[in-house]
Amino acid sequence: MKYGYFDDKAREYVITRPDTPMPWINYIGCEGYFGILSATAGGYSYYKDARLRRLTRGRYNNVPLDFGGRYIYVRDNADGSFFSPSWMPVRGKLDDYSCRHGMGYSVISGKKNGIAASTRYFVPMGENLEIWDFTVTNERAESADLSIFSIAEFCLWDAQDDATNFQRNFSTGQVEVEDEVIYHKTEYRERRNHFAWFACSEKLTGFDTQREAFLGPWRGWEDPKAVAEGKSGDSIAHGWQPVASNHIKLSLKPGETRRIVFVLGYHENPRDQKFDPPNSQTINKKLVKPTIAKFRDPKNVDAAFAALKENWDTLLGKIQVQTPDVHTDRMVNVWNAYQCMATFNMSRSASTFESGIGRGLGFRDSNQDLLGFVHMVPERARQRILDLAATQFASGGAYHQYQPMTKKGNNDIGGGFNDDPHWLIIGVAQYLKETGDFSILDEKVPFDTTPGTEVPLYEHLRRSIQYALDNIGPHGLPLIGQADWNDCLNLNCFSDEPGQSFQCLKGATDGKTAESVFIGGLMVLSCKELAGVAKAAGKPGDVETYLELAQKMDETVRKHGWDGEWFLRAYDNFGKKIGSHENEEGKIYIEPQGFCVIAGIGVEDGTARKALDSVNKHLATKHGIVLQQPAYTRYYIELGEISSYPPGYKENAGIFCHNNPWVIIAETILGNGDQAHDYYTRICPSAREEISDLHKNEPYVFSQMIAGKDAPTHGEAKNSWLTGTAAWTFFAATAYILGIRAEYDGLRVQPVIPKAWDGFTATRVFRGVTFDISVKRAGKGNRVALTVDGKAIDGTIVPLPKDGAKTVKVEAVLS
Amino acid sequence: MKYGYFDDKAREYVITRPDTPMPWINYIGCEGYFGILSATAGGYSYYKDARLRRLTRGRYNNVPLDFGGRYIYVRDNADGSFFSPSWMPVRGKLDDYSCRHGMGYSVISGKKNGIAASTRYFVPMGENLEIWDFTVTNERAESADLSIFSIAEFCLWDAQDDATNFQRNFSTGQVEVEDEVIYHKTEYRERRNHFAWFACSEKLTGFDTQREAFLGPWRGWEDPKAVAEGKSGDSIAHGWQPVASNHIKLSLKPGETRRIVFVLGYHENPRDQKFDPPNSQTINKKLVKPTIAKFRDPKNVDAAFAALKENWDTLLGKIQVQTPDVHTDRMVNVWNAYQCMATFNMSRSASTFESGIGRGLGFRDSNQDLLGFVHMVPERARQRILDLAATQFASGGAYHQYQPMTKKGNNDIGGGFNDDPHWLIIGVAQYLKETGDFSILDEKVPFDTTPGTEVPLYEHLRRSIQYALDNIGPHGLPLIGQADWNDCLNLNCFSDEPGQSFQCLKGATDGKTAESVFIGGLMVLSCKELAGVAKAAGKPGDVETYLELAQKMDETVRKHGWDGEWFLRAYDNFGKKIGSHENEEGKIYIEPQGFCVIAGIGVEDGTARKALDSVNKHLATKHGIVLQQPAYTRYYIELGEISSYPPGYKENAGIFCHNNPWVIIAETILGNGDQAHDYYTRICPSAREEISDLHKNEPYVFSQMIAGKDAPTHGEAKNSWLTGTAAWTFFAATAYILGIRAEYDGLRVQPVIPKAWDGFTATRVFRGVTFDISVKRAGKGNRVALTVDGKAIDGTIVPLPKDGAKTVKVEAVLS
Repeated sequence: MKYGYFDDKAREYVITRPDTPMPWINYIGCEGYFGILSATAGGYSYYKDARLRRLTRGRYNNVPLDFGGRYIYVRDNADGSFFSPSWMPVRGKLDDYSCRHGMGYSVISGKKNGIAASTRYFVPMGENLEIWDFTVTNERAESADLSIFSIAEFCLWDAQDDATNFQRNFSTGQVEVEDEVIYHKTEYRERRNHFAWFACSEKLTGFDTQREAFLGPWRGWEDPKAVAEGKSGDSIAHGWQPVASNHIKLSLKPGETRRIVFVLGYHENPRDQKFDPPNSQTINKKLVKPTIAKFRDPKNVDAAFAALKENWDTLLGKIQVQTPDVHTDRMVNVWNAYQCMATFNMSRSASTFESGIGRGLGFRDSNQDLLGFVHMVPERARQRILDLAATQFASGGAYHQYQPMTKKGNNDIGGGFNDDPHWLIIGVAQYLKETGDFSILDEKVPFDTTPGTEVPLYEHLRRSIQYALDNIGPHGLPLIGQADWNDCLNLNCFSDEPGQSFQCLKGATDGKTAESVFIGGLMVLSCKELAGVAKAAGKPGDVETYLELAQKMDETVRKHGWDGEWFLRAYDNFGKKIGSHENEEGKIYIEPQGFCVIAGIGVEDGTARKALDSVNKHLATKHGIVLQQPAYTRYYIELGEISSYPPGYKENAGIFCHNNPWVIIAETILGNGDQAHDYYTRICPSAREEISDLHKNEPYVFSQMIAGKDAPTHGEAKNSWLTGTAAWTFFAATAYILGIRAEYDGLRVQPVIPKAWDGFTATRVFRGVTFDISVKRAGKGNRVALTVDGKAIDGTIVPLPKDGAKTVKVEAVLS
Repeated sequence: MKYGYFDDKAREYVITRPDTPMPWINYIGCEGYFGILSATAGGYSYYKDARLRRLTRGRYNNVPLDFGGRYIYVRDNADGSFFSPSWMPVRGKLDDYSCRHGMGYSVISGKKNGIAASTRYFVPMGENLEIWDFTVTNERAESADLSIFSIAEFCLWDAQDDATNFQRNFSTGQVEVEDEVIYHKTEYRERRNHFAWFACSEKLTGFDTQREAFLGPWRGWEDPKAVAEGKSGDSIAHGWQPVASNHIKLSLKPGETRRIVFVLGYHENPRDQKFDPPNSQTINKKLVKPTIAKFRDPKNVDAAFAALKENWDTLLGKIQVQTPDVHTDRMVNVWNAYQCMATFNMSRSASTFESGIGRGLGFRDSNQDLLGFVHMVPERARQRILDLAATQFASGGAYHQYQPMTKKGNNDIGGGFNDDPHWLIIGVAQYLKETGDFSILDEKVPFDTTPGTEVPLYEHLRRSIQYALDNIGPHGLPLIGQADWNDCLNLNCFSDEPGQSFQCLKGATDGKTAESVFIGGLMVLSCKELAGVAKAAGKPGDVETYLELAQKMDETVRKHGWDGEWFLRAYDNFGKKIGSHENEEGKIYIEPQGFCVIAGIGVEDGTARKALDSVNKHLATKHGIVLQQPAYTRYYIELGEISSYPPGYKENAGIFCHNNPWVIIAETILGNGDQAHDYYTRICPSAREEISDLHKNEPYVFSQMIAGKDAPTHGEAKNSWLTGTAAWTFFAATAYILGIRAEYDGLRVQPVIPKAWDGFTATRVFRGVTFDISVKRAGKGNRVALTVDGKAIDGTIVPLPKDGAKTVKVEAVLS
């Protein structure tokens, strides 16, 4: 069954009942201030780093799962009854409910007993604050005396410390209340120069800043004492749990609507201007007051919302398509692109499944994510590339993660994930193709963020390959290191105690035997891409070098990485094959099949086709393609984390969606548009909307994993939003199925669409030029004939107009 | 107002209303299996290590604060209404409620609509399991058809990972259900060899193991779907959140009582016998089944409870007193001793204020805690000493903390807290005085837990002093290092960024200037104690050495550590005085006043009296003695964390109870029993029971901190249970006010009691001999005349009977 519907025109998903199978969230904020927001107003906010600058408190895996958030209570003062327009936390029956998750905003509306209320939550562009734009209408025939209460619970900044260190934290909480604005300033007295504030457009009847004063003893968010009694405590928090609650009394005539704007903001003062007066302990509010005043005025709120809309129109306008398939359209035009921006902003930090205190930005993740957002925010992609490259070592190896606040490599994890360096090449190549900005190759970038070690970015790319060459195993394949793309295939760790890292345990082996066929395929691709970069950048000597390396590794993979019906996955520490018919379990893995074909291995000699047929035969299910088969039924210490999962979940034969698009792309490379789009549809959230009770996660974004056929819950999705699936499915759909992809010398138009499609149209903004593309099918094949501005051209690449024209009309005929 | 009362005879605190100002908890378990249990059945359980072997989930700082626990629901199947006898989680009005917190058990009872139910929670001695011994009585005139539901939510073992790593953990949960027993086996398939189990004495009507199946979507513990509908889901958890819920239908005749025993257990299998059959993935249950069978039988439960009672009778029987002051009696006889066992078991790991995932065992903490429990469990104290000493470095310095599972020093914190080594001497000396077991001095103990480095324990004590001698500052006082006893006085760290450790930041100074007068006092005492050890152990050469060192440091403290009216606290990194009239804030600190007097400094020349008078004048409040004055109103980077707290809280002029007994002891040393007992009473929880609304924490155990006079909440307590206050107040009350203290050559009886007391009686078991002590006041002074078994003796030390008698009668007359 469904819990809502897509409003494609409005670019919104409309949730029509609040009891979704999981919290169905949205993100607000896309620059420095971010928030998670569920359809029932749950979630929390942070500034830049979900762990270190948490503004409001999140309790993960709560009971109920999603409890605590940006709540507003509407109390009928006539009888003391109250409800929340977001259903949570009060719950109980509403006469009407909806949540519209849009691009960077959500509107949550609820009605009860003739009182209709609605809140639009969003973060204005260029500001470090969030708006709760609340309206309430009296639909009764008589007047209504209402009390409106808002509540936000502050986090004491460091979310990990906040959740564990109560013997300190219950004594440190501090607030100030001035001009009806609540300032949360815990630790501002000492080393912090930042604070949060909560303001309201209306005159307050009362307020609370101490949680227990608002809630009353032993009461939950569903029944706060202040709301039940219709009276705030005007409490000032001294330690314990600071909150911000406003109370506004309203008298509404029949039919009357009132609007209240609540604003939660973050502000940093210069360190030498923290206090006012300077020798006091009172926050200097001079610099933040203009912002507060601005957003207490609804006019400015309206303008900010319009600007937000415009921002997303621009971003999504970079590519818009109209195909015969509604799921493809809404994912490409709206939701998948939107999800790509989320993975750019959040990496893997904060979602229903990511607590925001675990991981930094992944080297591998972020380079891949780039495939999904470089066309929308090329300037920010450029900075991301430079940040990533700066965490590379002089050896060409790389930190596996880096911290978003410091941009320094994470020492706890370290390096030695031997696929990492290759992804930098792939990310940079994509950036260059999209932007043509070759100046980035000359940017001076340090190693290990150490000043004085700077070399041009291009040299970093060369080091990536050098690292691979320095780490070749007995069969001539790349050594796997701690793990390759599959973080859970750990061939050198031999972890036997709980709590040990599966990836980072050192010393069990010398690391010189276990090899990855997957990295072999990846290296073929990265060498080809680096040759492409070299060619485009005018370094012809390097072109040959890297093409030769690609050719050599291609041969090695075909010789030592082929199992007869499919590509092997790896050799373990004992030189034993993994992902082979010789194995009892884990005979065939998805990753090398998809990626070797993408790299072009075996495309000529038929092994590629054979590999993909094996995928179809052994791994494909109606809910997507599982990672391997047969699932591991027990723990294999020599394989590591992959076998730690129950069969059918995660890497142990779950449908790990991230690598499904590799097979999709591979199928397009082999010309099989039907199969490619079929695989796409199986994991496509929109196409799974009808089975929301099984799928559970949001039907508007991809999930990392869908339980595989060995799992009792086959088809159940987990880990939505923050997954490499976003970028790769977007890339597969736009660049390979629809075939519109950036190249150094123009925009390629080379669709490999289903036979049943009669064509499609698309608009693509590429290097400032708008390409209006119309594709028509004249035959069942994939042969492309292009007409550009009325003139037939050879090949499938549309060059940029030489005359500086800003639009190009492209007509493609498939036959 | 009060929320209950002491039942002194039963050794119980009886809570009569559930809405206590904070969760008022008890601990169950005192060997390897432990649980926190609030008066409303909240809390969680673990095996040995609250972080790494968490059995059930705890959500700290929840809303409500204490939500989640060991809940039982009683449902009236006639109308579907239900309640929890523990009030939480259902809440609502009960017709009757009580919680009896006893020694290692709690009995929580509730009644509604003629159905009375009661649960006794405890952990049997020698077992790794907890019992929920539930009885229900139908007090109605007609029959009642009831459904009883139990619920426990499993933690996936590592409490930190469990609370943050959902992208993995939501896929790993696994259970088995066999013979109506629920086995929680998450990660058993891989590196773990332990599991939890939940069993019931009755035939089940149904069960649940998947949390959301039990709760239903978007429902909380207060209204689970299974309970509301009167039907379990018989669910099997695959991932998500495994729980254990039993459903038992009962038909009760009028007046009938039924008993149901629920048991939650932990079991470890040998690594080579994990599965049955061996090549399966099914838990081998052969070794645990006898235990399960045993405790499903109520007869064995009764026997286990009787054994638990007997254990506590023995432990508390080591000292029992009858004084004119009810607070002194109940604290010494019951609650303070009980709290000392809690600090032995838990160190600072798990309480309402300690999340159980933060800290290991503190070197300093654990040595001091020993003062409170060595007389009860000398064998376990012996092992603790050896474990602590093994984390000392060859330099004599020590790791500041060690991990309870590995017993290895904690590298994150490291060493350099220069008071640490001295506490080992004080702990060992106390152990020797209590037990006379000098064999411990010859035990071979390694440095830094490194095999091959073992030296006799006595040599460790010598190294402690050597470390001090190697770390002397410009005035001849001990260098302070990272911090001394006051972890928040950080003179070498200069922390200026949020998130930096206040204690462990290195490199700001060379550490060779800042000195601690407190450690000076501590060193005088530790040198004297080591001289005492040497003397008693027959090492006369060392006696002189250490007495000379004590004398030298005594002179140094009086010369460079005296401010005119009180002892200085320290010299900072610039050689500037701290805790001096020359300072604007922090002019006088409590620690050196109490401890220097305990060490005997200035007792002869009147400076000790002067120092204590200054404490009384500047630091004493009606709620206890604050740590320093005036409070720091701003952050001083050169002082560190102490100035990070708002004034009046924690070390920044809060009443940090731990050091109040130092002043109490000091007052007895100067013969001032009235002042000593007055200070004792100010922080004594029982004496503060009437002001529970202000005090907030449990009135049966000491809290670490009571807000000082600079705080808006002066008198409000925080951080109950796990505090060094427990040991020191017990030691101050028994060994100094009542004056009954262990010495090498006998039991000293030298009371310094209030003038108004006409005497007291006491029983003290010392080295296997029971001393029946009767003290009578004949005059207002502290002069003691002792009669032992009818014969007057000189001095105040009662020797052990030479004839092997097991009882000694001691009469003391004060004049």
